[in-house]
Amino acid sequence: MAATTALTASAFAQAESPLPPKVEADAKKLIEKALADDQGYRTVEELTTKVGARLAGSEAEARARDWAVDHLKSLGFKNVRIETFEIPYWAREKEAAAIVSPFPQELEITGLGGSVATPEGGVTGEVVRFETMTELKNYPEGDTLAGKIVFVDEPMVRTQDGSGYGVAVAKRSGAANEAGKRGAKAALIRSVGTDHHRFPHTGLMSYEKDVTKVPTAALSAPDSDQLARALEMSDGPVTVLFELSVQTREKAPSGNVIAEIPGRTDEIVLIGAHLDSWDLGTGAVDDGAGVGIVVGAGKLMLDKRKKPERTIRIVLFGSEEVGLLGAFEYARAHAAELDKHVMGAESDFGAGKIYQFQTRYGESQLDKAAAMARVLEPLGIARGDNMAGGGPDVIPLRIAGVPVTSLRQNGWDYFDLHHTPDDTLDKIDPDELAQNVAAYAAFTWMAANMPGPFREPPAEEAAPTEDVADGAQ
Amino acid sequence: MAATTALTASAFAQAESPLPPKVEADAKKLIEKALADDQGYRTVEELTTKVGARLAGSEAEARARDWAVDHLKSLGFKNVRIETFEIPYWAREKEAAAIVSPFPQELEITGLGGSVATPEGGVTGEVVRFETMTELKNYPEGDTLAGKIVFVDEPMVRTQDGSGYGVAVAKRSGAANEAGKRGAKAALIRSVGTDHHRFPHTGLMSYEKDVTKVPTAALSAPDSDQLARALEMSDGPVTVLFELSVQTREKAPSGNVIAEIPGRTDEIVLIGAHLDSWDLGTGAVDDGAGVGIVVGAGKLMLDKRKKPERTIRIVLFGSEEVGLLGAFEYARAHAAELDKHVMGAESDFGAGKIYQFQTRYGESQLDKAAAMARVLEPLGIARGDNMAGGGPDVIPLRIAGVPVTSLRQNGWDYFDLHHTPDDTLDKIDPDELAQNVAAYAAFTWMAANMPGPFREPPAEEAAPTEDVADGAQ
Repeated sequence: MAATTALTASAFAQAESPLPPKVEADAKKLIEKALADDQGYRTVEELTTKVGARLAGSEAEARARDWAVDHLKSLGFKNVRIETFEIPYWAREKEAAAIVSPFPQELEITGLGGSVATPEGGVTGEVVRFETMTELKNYPEGDTLAGKIVFVDEPMVRTQDGSGYGVAVAKRSGAANEAGKRGAKAALIRSVGTDHHRFPHTGLMSYEKDVTKVPTAALSAPDSDQLARALEMSDGPVTVLFELSVQTREKAPSGNVIAEIPGRTDEIVLIGAHLDSWDLGTGAVDDGAGVGIVVGAGKLMLDKRKKPERTIRIVLFGSEEVGLLGAFEYARAHAAELDKHVMGAESDFGAGKIYQFQTRYGESQLDKAAAMARVLEPLGIARGDNMAGGGPDVIPLRIAGVPVTSLRQNGWDYFDLHHTPDDTLDKIDPDELAQNVAAYAAFTWMAANMPGPFREPPAEEAAPTEDVADGAQ
Repeated sequence: MAATTALTASAFAQAESPLPPKVEADAKKLIEKALADDQGYRTVEELTTKVGARLAGSEAEARARDWAVDHLKSLGFKNVRIETFEIPYWAREKEAAAIVSPFPQELEITGLGGSVATPEGGVTGEVVRFETMTELKNYPEGDTLAGKIVFVDEPMVRTQDGSGYGVAVAKRSGAANEAGKRGAKAALIRSVGTDHHRFPHTGLMSYEKDVTKVPTAALSAPDSDQLARALEMSDGPVTVLFELSVQTREKAPSGNVIAEIPGRTDEIVLIGAHLDSWDLGTGAVDDGAGVGIVVGAGKLMLDKRKKPERTIRIVLFGSEEVGLLGAFEYARAHAAELDKHVMGAESDFGAGKIYQFQTRYGESQLDKAAAMARVLEPLGIARGDNMAGGGPDVIPLRIAGVPVTSLRQNGWDYFDLHHTPDDTLDKIDPDELAQNVAAYAAFTWMAANMPGPFREPPAEEAAPTEDVADGAQ
């Protein structure tokens, strides 16, 4: 009886599913192979060892592109190429900070990407601490902080999905602008991070138009605590010296590296990661892991020796860390074929296990998402909602209407390492990485071989109900 | 029946115990008070915030002494004083390393205390990796490594009692000597530490007599892994650049800070910790914690407002990190009264909970150890053996025959932080620190008020049995 029931249920599921049985079977085989494969790990191992840190626009980023081309070609991908573009370049040179009085000692800081330099010898000023960005924003504008060094000590909340980042990152960009509006000499922030190690976290900042540009840097969490305690223990003002020198160039070379598994049609399923990293670590979790995951997944699909329906395109974006420059360049250069992009997904949140399959497809296409979710479920991946972001570098695609998928990773520890010297290969668990490769391989194969679109069909093709017509008013 | 049995057992125990009931009751009250007190934590908080790092012989170490004198006086200790001495001074200036070829990238290193500098601009050489110190020692001497940079990649074993340190530390001092004997240009070691963060661990090294002095530094664990992988992945030699500049002076001021709770007799119970730290962190676990523990314990005993039988002497040793210089100086300066030192104990293993009460008393005095152990037991402290070290700064006392006690702490995480920038206050758990204070207060009070010696009485006073006489042949 049990066998009969199972057969009936299976027959029913097959009848209902938009996923052809052969594609489903292939996806399941990919999962099985991926869990026993280490190409993903070996890829991030090579990238982070042979190149190491690869700052956007640097000579190291160029070496990373060359490495990627060789690597992708050697694995057997087709149409491997670099699409170059130019970016404004920023690199730190010297950076230092110290409490000058009343408790002289060095502080661990790192300059924020895009910051102007201090004058040579640094700036010295009395520290004014703000517990939150809101407190600083509410502080009266004008010369209210003239000669002072602003210190925004707002901590970041640890979350599995990284949602604490959005809140915390506001101070990374904002502190210098708000400091400038109030006549301050400089802005220091508590690092955007969740660890308690003595690593300051770097990351991009940007100046608002017409604001006085003041230099800015992040303190490690222990140094932020130390500065806060010094303020508490001191009877008088606490004075800090902050020095930052930077190298900038108007134009520096960057590029996106592209590799393909050509399909039978001109439709494209894009999976990506970013090749550049910040300069402090070796960019293992951000985003060497993503490179390993999409390349590892691609290699397993290549090894099937079966042409997919759609072309599978792997894009290793350049200059993500400095404002998604590679992503916007990709969307510009490929504007004419964006409507052929049926799906986009980027892996850019470390190497933690994927726990959720989140989509942003047309509402009428969600049976496809459900069918894919069922295949991914044995990996411990639950079906999420239909509000996916898709990853930073697919934002321009999403804006252009390309359906996107987020294979959401456990980011509990991600912001312990993010943008620090401690972002190194040893932080990656090969088994967790393999689970990611499995999910990407299965998902990508299904997306490339499942009939029909993921987008909502154009409105004129759909037969609108009265409700929809009403809603459109 | 149960009550009667308990009474009988209690009466029996009291009759047998060398610990007077009043002293035992006082010790138990001290434990109770200590667990609700935070003077220990506030002491290490102040030291690490107001002074921060305090390298032996530096101006910061001098500020630490001044702070300690003020702090100890303000708490009410008597005979607070500094006993000064001079030491040879060593401080790092610039330090940097990088893989030059074939995979150019920076490496995180830190110079080892006492190392000679490299020539300006650094030394560049091919890296030769040794898995263990033994492997290097077995390598033929002569010019067998001429022009090379030695890299000893031996990892350290994590243990609760720190016993992995003794093994691992051999490479810190030894690598440069063995490199020099073989004509190498420099020696790099995998840090003596148990973490996987990108912090190199510093620490003392010293040159053997007549050996060619080559500069030496430690790589962080991730950088050691990286260099090992680079060697594995490279088809040819891996070349590294290593630069270290140092500042040395023949003589610099250091000192021990002493404070007392005067007793009724001229006998002394000494508890200590060391005031200096390495330069990279703020010396919270090494050894701000110890300072907090002995000062916190002392303050609770002061607050009893009851003169102990013996004088309780707190010694905050200077220049421990550079060869126990304060400890040897103390033994030298107090040579005339060392026989009055009835007990020594140092807290210098972080802030982890004490799990064992280990002694080195005369064999005939072990009933006293057993009595003290029973009082400490409710703190989760078990009786250990009679082979205690007592702590690094009491080694000269132990050599001079002073009985010593080790209140052994859980050091599972200690070598994650030891001698790194990450040795900061946030790594101390105030509750665990309070347990240490409780144990030190109770132990010290018992040692100061328990009648009779802890040493073995001189041989001529003991009546030897025939067995002993036989054994002496």
